Order: sequence, then structure tokens, then C-alpha cells
Amino acid sequence: MQRKYPIGILGATGMVGQRFIQLLENHPWFEVEWLAASDRSSGKTYGEAAKWRLDTVLPDRIARMTVAPADPEGAPRIIFAALDAAIAREMEPRFADAGCAVISNSSAYRMAPNVPLVIPEINADHLHLIEEQPSRGASGGYMVTNPNCSTIGLVMALKPIEERFGIEQIFVTTMQAVSGAGYPGVPSMDILGNVVPYIGSEEEKMEAETLKLLGRLDGHSVIPLAARISAQCNRVAVEDGHTENVSIKLGNKLGRAATRLELLSAWAEFKPLAGQGLPMAPDQPVEWAPQDDRPQPRLDRNRGRGMAVTVGRLRPCSILDWKFTVLSHNTIRGAAGAAILNAELLASLGKLEPVVEAIARA
Amino acid sequence: MQRKYPIGILGATGMVGQRFIQLLENHPWFEVEWLAASDRSSGKTYGEAAKWRLDTVLPDRIARMTVAPADPEGAPRIIFAALDAAIAREMEPRFADAGCAVISNSSAYRMAPNVPLVIPEINADHLHLIEEQPSRGASGGYMVTNPNCSTIGLVMALKPIEERFGIEQIFVTTMQAVSGAGYPGVPSMDILGNVVPYIGSEEEKMEAETLKLLGRLDGHSVIPLAARISAQCNRVAVEDGHTENVSIKLGNKLGRAATRLELLSAWAEFKPLAGQGLPMAPDQPVEWAPQDDRPQPRLDRNRGRGMAVTVGRLRPCSILDWKFTVLSHNTIRGAAGAAILNAELLASLGKLEPVVEAIARA
Amino acid sequence: MQRKYPIGILGATGMVGQRFIQLLENHPWFEVEWLAASDRSSGKTYGEAAKWRLDTVLPDRIARMTVAPADPEGAPRIIFAALDAAIAREMEPRFADAGCAVISNSSAYRMAPNVPLVIPEINADHLHLIEEQPSRGASGGYMVTNPNCSTIGLVMALKPIEERFGIEQIFVTTMQAVSGAGYPGVPSMDILGNVVPYIGSEEEKMEAETLKLLGRLDGHSVIPLAARISAQCNRVAVEDGHTENVSIKLGNKLGRAATRLELLSAWAEFKPLAGQGLPMAPDQPVEWAPQDDRPQPRLDRNRGRGMAVTVGRLRPCSILDWKFTVLSHNTIRGAAGAAILNAELLASLGKLEPVVEAIARA
Amino acid sequence: MQRKYPIGILGATGMVGQRFIQLLENHPWFEVEWLAASDRSSGKTYGEAAKWRLDTVLPDRIARMTVAPADPEGAPRIIFAALDAAIAREMEPRFADAGCAVISNSSAYRMAPNVPLVIPEINADHLHLIEEQPSRGASGGYMVTNPNCSTIGLVMALKPIEERFGIEQIFVTTMQAVSGAGYPGVPSMDILGNVVPYIGSEEEKMEAETLKLLGRLDGHSVIPLAARISAQCNRVAVEDGHTENVSIKLGNKLGRAATRLELLSAWAEFKPLAGQGLPMAPDQPVEWAPQDDRPQPRLDRNRGRGMAVTVGRLRPCSILDWKFTVLSHNTIRGAAGAAILNAELLASLGKLEPVVEAIARA
Repeated sequence: MQRKYPIGILGATGMVGQRFIQLLENHPWFEVEWLAASDRSSGKTYGEAAKWRLDTVLPDRIARMTVAPADPEGAPRIIFAALDAAIAREMEPRFADAGCAVISNSSAYRMAPNVPLVIPEINADHLHLIEEQPSRGASGGYMVTNPNCSTIGLVMALKPIEERFGIEQIFVTTMQAVSGAGYPGVPSMDILGNVVPYIGSEEEKMEAETLKLLGRLDGHSVIPLAARISAQCNRVAVEDGHTENVSIKLGNKLGRAATRLELLSAWAEFKPLAGQGLPMAPDQPVEWAPQDDRPQPRLDRNRGRGMAVTVGRLRPCSILDWKFTVLSHNTIRGAAGAAILNAELLASLGKLEPVVEAIARA
Repeated sequence: MQRKYPIGILGATGMVGQRFIQLLENHPWFEVEWLAASDRSSGKTYGEAAKWRLDTVLPDRIARMTVAPADPEGAPRIIFAALDAAIAREMEPRFADAGCAVISNSSAYRMAPNVPLVIPEINADHLHLIEEQPSRGASGGYMVTNPNCSTIGLVMALKPIEERFGIEQIFVTTMQAVSGAGYPGVPSMDILGNVVPYIGSEEEKMEAETLKLLGRLDGHSVIPLAARISAQCNRVAVEDGHTENVSIKLGNKLGRAATRLELLSAWAEFKPLAGQGLPMAPDQPVEWAPQDDRPQPRLDRNRGRGMAVTVGRLRPCSILDWKFTVLSHNTIRGAAGAAILNAELLASLGKLEPVVEAIARA
Repeated sequence: MQRKYPIGILGATGMVGQRFIQLLENHPWFEVEWLAASDRSSGKTYGEAAKWRLDTVLPDRIARMTVAPADPEGAPRIIFAALDAAIAREMEPRFADAGCAVISNSSAYRMAPNVPLVIPEINADHLHLIEEQPSRGASGGYMVTNPNCSTIGLVMALKPIEERFGIEQIFVTTMQAVSGAGYPGVPSMDILGNVVPYIGSEEEKMEAETLKLLGRLDGHSVIPLAARISAQCNRVAVEDGHTENVSIKLGNKLGRAATRLELLSAWAEFKPLAGQGLPMAPDQPVEWAPQDDRPQPRLDRNRGRGMAVTVGRLRPCSILDWKFTVLSHNTIRGAAGAAILNAELLASLGKLEPVVEAIARA
Repeated sequence: MQRKYPIGILGATGMVGQRFIQLLENHPWFEVEWLAASDRSSGKTYGEAAKWRLDTVLPDRIARMTVAPADPEGAPRIIFAALDAAIAREMEPRFADAGCAVISNSSAYRMAPNVPLVIPEINADHLHLIEEQPSRGASGGYMVTNPNCSTIGLVMALKPIEERFGIEQIFVTTMQAVSGAGYPGVPSMDILGNVVPYIGSEEEKMEAETLKLLGRLDGHSVIPLAARISAQCNRVAVEDGHTENVSIKLGNKLGRAATRLELLSAWAEFKPLAGQGLPMAPDQPVEWAPQDDRPQPRLDRNRGRGMAVTVGRLRPCSILDWKFTVLSHNTIRGAAGAAILNAELLASLGKLEPVVEAIARA
């Protein structure tokens, strides 16, 4: 690849927007060339407009860039979107209609029948849905989404098991980091020394998205996995990293009960992107932590540069079949990193070329 | 009641020992007259021996008391025990054999067939088991235990439901406060900005104790509730107050599905100790929090002076029948307060009199 | 006193407003009869309008009260004000002009020459300044303020020393709780596992207010204490309770160097309100903590029901003379409790009667 | 440099020992070949003996190494020591006597007249003191120390100022991370939602070490800087990174008052190791943070891979001359990284060669 794809970021000043900038710094394929945010920020330099909250230094080049208005005019053809759902609902189709590949982290269109909800390791074939989008035929533009930050760790842990054994029931309780709520997000008065056993709409998203991600592409749409799922979502005093207690009832694909070793092997051998050379893809997407008291967010969230999920504590469940704990970095694997990996997958499939060429011809 | 029962505390310098002292200050029935701790503390004043970690001032009278060796000789006949399980296993029977009523917070004998594991609101009738203890006949002494701090909130929430509807399956995930591990207990390096998805033996205790507490006294022993239970226990960065996400499958006592309103009524009307005048007993043992995001440990743990448990977020579960969240103060309702309420129940039943009189006669 | 003074609260839904409600529940002299907040809340019940964040239950009577518009019309004559400075600047004079005694926690008028900035134990005589306010002559109304939450603990610790020895230089570094910033206030992303070494305008307020409080009433105005003061303010991950490291250079009132014992005695014997029967006044306003590692916010903030400040770690300073640590509850002694104690002082001085009677006559 | 120096770590299982392992992984000059710890660990593999608490994965090679007894026999000639002071006092001289270069993070010998206390950017010339050690003549071995974690950030910020303007008085208040206390270290019950205004012996260490570090080598000993210093040390709920509020009175080297710009320039231009190629040395040892609310531990501790210190909030002080805030990573720049940089300096000065060769000849 001789030169990098120019990309833009919608919602560049928020927490996920900042992660996009951090993760794309020195990315071999993509180059940030356009940053957009709300009208309040537009016209300022990024350094003035954003309150940088990450623990790496804001790159100088980015700090000096001027924040553009959130308009497709003048924007690159590849757009990472980190917008609130209400704004995304209106804005993302505008960019797709204008011919952009909109790679979105928002919840607005995740469950739309013709919008792929994709994790490259899980359901790359669902990308076919972009061909069902009207904008695709008209301008070449389209929308692709990644799941909610709490869904993604769960599905990464479930997929290798579902493939080999089937899954009929899923019980999940989350303990989610505050960064998942953005900035300013969760007030410190709510979370210091506390647990908040509620995150608005989170349980509903988690239940629906999980079944779509594990579902089967059937011509023009996705048939969700026929499993029952029950989610309980809590906020805890953790900066980054969602911890989830999971219990599952297996299906009967194997024709007999699975052993603990077979489950561990399913995770260990799960490397669907091996050899594809996607820069953000972790070598070992699902890592096993053998210690009794792991995974833990502070110690395990950065595995695979934040892109691997960690599972541990696999043991029998007296109600369903097996229980375990899964941990993933919510703003890397669960948000910005997820979208970048989706973009890398699209690039490797040639789905970015026509978009970029279309505009080159124009 | 003309004069107070003199009582002693075994393990008086630890976190639960300190709570005993705090809660017994100005108690109308009991007076702390003896404090024992490890050999290292023995002979010092309590003020020197204990690192007081509560947010009320250590009473002067207690600070000046000399810590006694942990020996029944010279101890009062009513003993609150807050010992580590390994030490309790050896020491509690010694005090019972010497004629003491040992009201223990330790796990050592909770599951022993002839030791009652009691929450006064739940299974006061199980106290009958003390008559099965050899020491009872010999010296009058006996042992009574209260459950683990994580069990007690769960069982308080389940009992009103079990009575009316039956319970067949129980799924529980805990987010437990650090004070449950005593002092020094959980290192700050382990819990700041973190979740530890493991507490040694906690899941096993929670599962076994819950079924014994909800079990039926059958002559000389307790038949555990015939339900399936699966627990997952986590430590979170909370000082006091255990939060638990619970999901249950009801039994068929009602002959039809229970409504949400019927469940709420079961909790609201659950007042088994009403009119008995036990000083530690909360007026409303199970309080309902109607807000979406409650209960929360920092806001709800002190309801009923730390003796009420709070339930909230009742909603259908797509795998079992109902799910909800329960919150209880782990060192008050879950430890020292639980033991004191057990002692109050014993006093009201006349089970302390013979013990005290036996020694008075001697 | 036969019946209670009816009082109103401006800014009733905020954190300090909530503390007013909590502390005034069952107050022997005052009765909350009117609650006002922003237009957004007006017309709702208080239970609907406020997100109650305290760990006691919101009283039913208050929850059912309707939030009034922030207008003197129909308001009681005694008003506790817990407004943001910008709003207070416009609104408090309106209430004073309408004949109300405005007892304010806001910073808007603390440094105004004719507005008393008062801590009853420190400078009750400064109250005379209300007679300098134009509204006092016109309608009988007036404004009284209490200091910033970080100032109040410092001044409580300094006053007994200043009286006996004089103070020439004051060096103070604060570690302040998040509740001082209100709700939502400090984002959790900013403070979990972190220190923020800056609080806007706090250092300036602390320096100016301290000298005014320790100043001398001279006819129509206050002459600030002629001392040099340097403040550094930090936010830390604490819910309630401001910790301050203080170093001071004494004056020469004694004619010789003061001993450690003399400083301790100054604190121990400081009881300027003794015998006055003000309900919120702590018996021992400045408590000494003898342990090496105290005071600590979690353990000491509730002394004197949150109204006492705690000092500890007194030791020589190699640059100034002495250094020590002081701790105070920032939303009780440092805000709502401070204002209520001011109101109690005004009541005991007969300064509330004319206000209330003026309206009774009208 | 053709092959790496083999090195050993004394106290390898503790928090600082773990940081040594982490920072030495892939170090271009040093190779970990020997790990020693207490008798309890000796003979186990490192993976079994250590509870790894860092957020990078423990290298496999290290995990499989057997922990050796803490004896010079069989140990490499270059030893990084991360021992408790009491153990270090006995053990470090034994290794020096046996011919080892002991590069110690312990406080045991920091203030010994013939032991250099060194930060390479500050006082590399003090290394000459090793020639004053009896072991140096006998076996070639010697001891070198680095300062306490709270001292190092302070001195890094002071040195550039002292060089140009002189410093007469130093006032410092620290807010220190829990990792500074090792593992298990600070109990979570002590620090969650809390501040502990005391760290045993820390203030004394900080005061004495600062003056020695800024002192002048005079023949056979160091004459401490003739300045007055007063330290107040607090523990806060931060995982890593010590924050310090500093106020200073300048000397008169300049002959006039220094300007703010001159102070900023002193920091910006301070690059005493430039061009020396020491791998751990940061390009910019003292970084300036221009934002009002910086530095902050969570955001700034990793600058210069944890080896740079960050200063901010420079402003006049009304008692001394200037005040500012400094932040440094306490287990990298303040402990393991400091010792490694000392070793790199020794290597570049040829002070490791004779030691290694001595043993090669033997």
C-alpha cells in the first residue's frame, strides 16, 4: 500500500473521538486529515476544542488542526463516527448519502436490518449487508457499525463456544468502567465508593446486539441466534475495562456434553483473522488467564494492545452449564479499536477502494 | 429488664469486633464487660491494642478496658465471637463447653448439623438445634451462628418470596465491599480502579448457607431448601455495602404465575418480628427502592440503621422468572448486627437466662 | 420558644440544598416551609425535581412539597440560600430588599464590605455589618454569608491560636472532597485514581476570606488580619471531608515562643459558644486527634455531627513555626451546617424577630 | 556493546522488583539472569513465588526462572536491590563485600557519608563517593543508591532552578500513590474515599535526601545544600504517581528577581544527559504542562516512559517566591527506573567493567 487512506472523525472531541486519534497515530493504513465536532468546537484548533483525557500526549499535528463543521462537504470519504445516538441518527446517513464509508461506533443504526453490526473475528460475512443500503447504489457510500462496549467482550468469548458446541442460554452480569459513559459522563458523586446497578438501555442493547452478532446472514438480512439471553448491567468505580460474569447453557452441536478442556481449546484455537495482516487485530483474540482471581480490569485490559479479551474462572454452573468471567477494554476493543478493525477489514476486502476512487474520479 | 446482660467479645480488635463495640454502645439489654483478642493484644488496653477504623469515636470506657486472654475463665457467659474460621473452630466449642452462649459470626460451624444458622426474621425456629448440642446438656452452653455477609442480604430478599410463591432456582452475582475482608484485608493495590472477580470460598458458602437458612427444621436437623443456586462473587472498590444482582425461578405455591405487584407486596408485608420489641430489628426488614438506579451501597446501606436490606429494579428475566438487585450493609446486617439480633432473639426466648443463672448459682 | 420559624431554601435541589433539608429535619427552631429552585424544577414536587444524593431517606413531607419559583412573593422571611454565585449575585439582594433575612452559602457577597462573613465561633461581632445594608433600613431584610468550604476548617483551627499568640504567616495545602463541587460536579473520569491540583478561584477565595474572618470590626467595616497567606488547592477522590496541611508563623502576642502544649491548650479550651444553647453548635469545636495518622476524612468528618473540625499532627516547621493537619466536613461544617448555625446565632441575638414580625404586621 | 551485562535482582518478588523485571525486559545493555527473594520464595519458580501486579504480561522466561537464595555466591556482579530497609542494611554490604556493584533502591544507606545518593541528571559527580567505600578497594564492589520516590520528583524540578537562581527555602506537600508502599502495602480500608496525612519517616527522608542530592561534592564527602526545607506527606487513593505542591524562595545567584519566563526556560533547557545515549534517560527530563489543572497522576505519569517529571501551575507565592506542582511516576522514575538509569550511568563511566572483569578473571 503506497499511500495512506485519508480519514475523518465525526465527534472527534469526545472520549471515543480521542481514542480514535490516539490509536490512529502512526497507523500504517489510515491518516487523520479531518476532524469534526459540534458547532461549539468548529473553527477552533483541536487543541483548544478538546479536553484531552488520555495518558499519552496529544500529537502536535492534531492539536493544530482546525475542527471542521460536521458536514460531508470537504470531508474525506472514510469517516469514523463517534457521535451520540440522537445526533448519529440524523448525521450518519447524510455522510453515507454523500458517498462516505461511515464506520460508526454509535448505537443509532446497529439494529437496522440493512446495516451490518460487525466484529471482524465474529461475523465478517455480515458486511454483505452494505450492498442492501440505498446509498451504496447511489453514491457508493454506506454505514457499518460495531457493537456496544459491553457486548463486544461477551460476544468474543461466546463465539468460539457457539461455533463448536452451540449456545442456548446466556446469563451475563456486567461491572462497567466509567469511561464507557463518555465525558463528563458519570459524576464522581455517583461512583466513588459506590455501585450503580443501572445503565440506561444497556441491558436491552446487550441482549439484542449479542444475538444479531451471533446470527446467520440469510440473503438480505441477519437471522439472530435462537438463544435466550438475560443481562444485568452495573457501573463500578473503574476507569477502563468492563468485567462480566457469564453463565451459559450449551447447545448440542457436539452430541454430548463438552469438557472444560474442550472449552479452553475452543478459546485457544480461535484465530479467525490469522494471516490476514490487519494491523489492529490481536494475535490471540481470546486470552485465557489461569489464575483464580483473574481477569481484572486494571491488570488485563491492555492485553493485545487493548484488543484482546481475557477469560478466566471457567467452572461448572449449577443452573446452566458453565460460568466464567470475561474482561475487555471498553474504549479500545469496545469502541474506537473496534471501528478501526472494521475499517481495516473493509480495506482488505476492497470495500474502501471504490469509495475513495469514486471521489478521486469526481 | 432491670439490669443488662454482661457480655464479652472474642476477636474484639478486628473489624467485626469493632462493629460489635460500636453497636453495643448504649444497647438497652447488653453491656460490654470483657474483650479478648490474640495473645499479641492481651494485657494491653483496648485503645492500645486496636486500630479503631470506624467513623464514630471509640468510647472512652472501652478504650481503657484491658484486653483479656481468649480464655473462658473469667469471661462472661454471653460471648459474641468475631474470629477467623480456623481459630473459631478450636475456640468456640471451648467457650460453649464452659457454659457460654457463643453467638458467632464465624463460618466455622455454620453448616454443622446441630448448630443453628439463624436470621431472626427468617428461621428463628432453627434455634431449637442448640438443644442438640452436647454442651447444652453438660454446661448449659451452646453455639449459634449467623450467615456470611453476602448470604444475609440475599436470603432476606428471598424469604418473603419463598414463603408465598416458592423458589426453584437462584442466580446471584455479588459486588462486595472491602470491609467484608477485615483489616488489613484487601490491599489497595488490588482494588483501586479495579474489580477482583474472586473471593475465596465465598461462592460455596453463599450457596450452602442460603439453602440451609431457607430450609425446614425436621426434628433434629434442618432439611435444606430443594432449590438450585449458582453464585458468582466479586470484590469492588466500595467501603461498606454488598450489592447483588439476583435472578430467580419461582415455585408453584400460588398455582399460577406471580405478578410484579404480588412480589412487591410480599416484600412490603414481610414483618415477622413486628411487636417483639427486639432493639436491633428494623421496622421494615426489606425496603423497596422505586428509583431506576437503586439500591446503591453509598446511599442505601444505612437504612434501618444498617439492619434493613433494600431491593430494587424488579423486572422479568428472560431465562428465569424475575430479576432484581439487593443491597445490605455487610458489617452491620451482615455481621455484628446480625449476631446482636440473634442474641436479642435468644434473650426474648429466655435462652440467655439459664446460661446467666447457671453461672450465678455457681 | 413556642413555635418554629418558618424558613425557605433557595437552590433546594442542589447538593447543599439537600444538606439543608437533611439537617433541618427535626430542627428545634426552624421548619422548612418553602423550597425554590430553577425554572426547570418549579411546579414539580421536590421528590420529582431533586435527585436526592444523601444517605438518609428524603423525608416524605419534603418529597411531597411543590417547588416554588425563586421569587420573594409568598416566600418565608428567613431564607437559606444555596445558589451558584452568578445567580446569587442577582437573586439574594432581591430577597433582602423584599424584607428577608438571607442566610447565604454563596460566594457572591462574602467579600462585600457591608456583608458579614461569619462563623459564630470566630467573629459573631461582624454581624453588626447587616445594619450597614440599605435593605435593612428599608425593608428590614439583610444578607449574611458563611465562608467557602475550604476556608472554614482552616479558620476554625487558626482562631484559637491567633487569639493567644497572633499569626503572621499561613501556608495551606488542601485535599478537597468532590462533594464541594456540587452535582454533577467533578466527572468521575477526572478523579478516579487521580488528583486534580486546581480548583477554579478556590485559592483566591480561601486567602481573602480567611483574613476577613480573622479581621477586626472597625465601625462600619472589617479590617482584615494583617497576615500573609498562601493557599494551594487540590481535588482528591474523597466523597466528603476536606483535609488541609497547614503551616503557620506565630505573632508575638505572648512575648515569647509558644510551646506545643500551649497550642494544644488553645484548641482544647476554645469554646466561645458554650452555654448559648445553639442547637447546631458542637460542644468541642476543635477536636484534637492524638494518633500519628489522623485526622482522616473518612474517620473524622462526622465528629460533632459534622460540625467539629479535627486537628492533628502538630509538629515544628523548619520554615515557619508549626505545622499541622486540619479536617472538616465540607457540606456540613463547610456549607449547610455553617449557614444554619449562623441562623441560630441570629435568632439568639433577636435578629430574626424583627424580620418575622415585620411581615406579621404587614 | 557486544553482549549484555548479566544482572541480578534482590527482592525480585516485591512491587519494585517487578518493575525492575518489566523495565529490563528487552533492555539493550542488561539481562536479568538471577532473581533472589526471601527464604519463603527461594527454590520456587518466579511465576509461583511472585504475585505479579503489573499490567503487562510477566515474560515467560522470567516466570520459569528459579528464585535463588539471597546470597552473593553464584549471583551476578551487578545487583539491583529492592529490599526493605531493615534487610538491606544487612544484605547490601554483604554483596558489595563480595565484589558486586549494588545499585540499591533502599533507604538503608542513602545518607551514609561514603555512599552516593544519585540521580544522573542531578549529581552524577557524587558517584565518586564509591571510591571511598572499603569494599571498593578490597573486592571492587560498591553500593550506589537512588532517592526515595517522593524526593526524586521534587529534586528534578528544583535542580534547574537551583543552578541558575539558587534556592533558600523549600516547602513541599505530597499526595502520594499507594504503590509507593509496596504490596500488600496500604489496606484498602485505609485509603478508599480517604486521605492519610502521614507516611512513616517519609518527611524526614525527603528533607534530608533533597539537600544531599542538591549538595556539593567536596573531596571525600557531600556538603548538603544550605537551604531550609519543610515537607508534609500524605497518602491518597491513586495507584501510581506522586503529586507535590511546592513553594520555594529563590537565592540570589542572578542578582535580581527571576521572572516566570526564566523559570520556565530553566526547566525547558535542562538536558544534562543529552547526547550520552543512556537508554532510560528521557529526552526532556522536566516537562512543562501549560494547562491550569495539570499535572495529574493519571494523565501525566507516563511521560518519557515514566522517566520524565511534569511541572505545572507556576505562579507567585505570597509567602515564599514561587509555587508550582510537580508529578512523577513513583515506581518508575521514583524507584526501579531510577536505579536502572544509575546503572546505565555507571556503565557509561566504565564503573561496571572492572566489577564484571574482576569476576571474569576469577
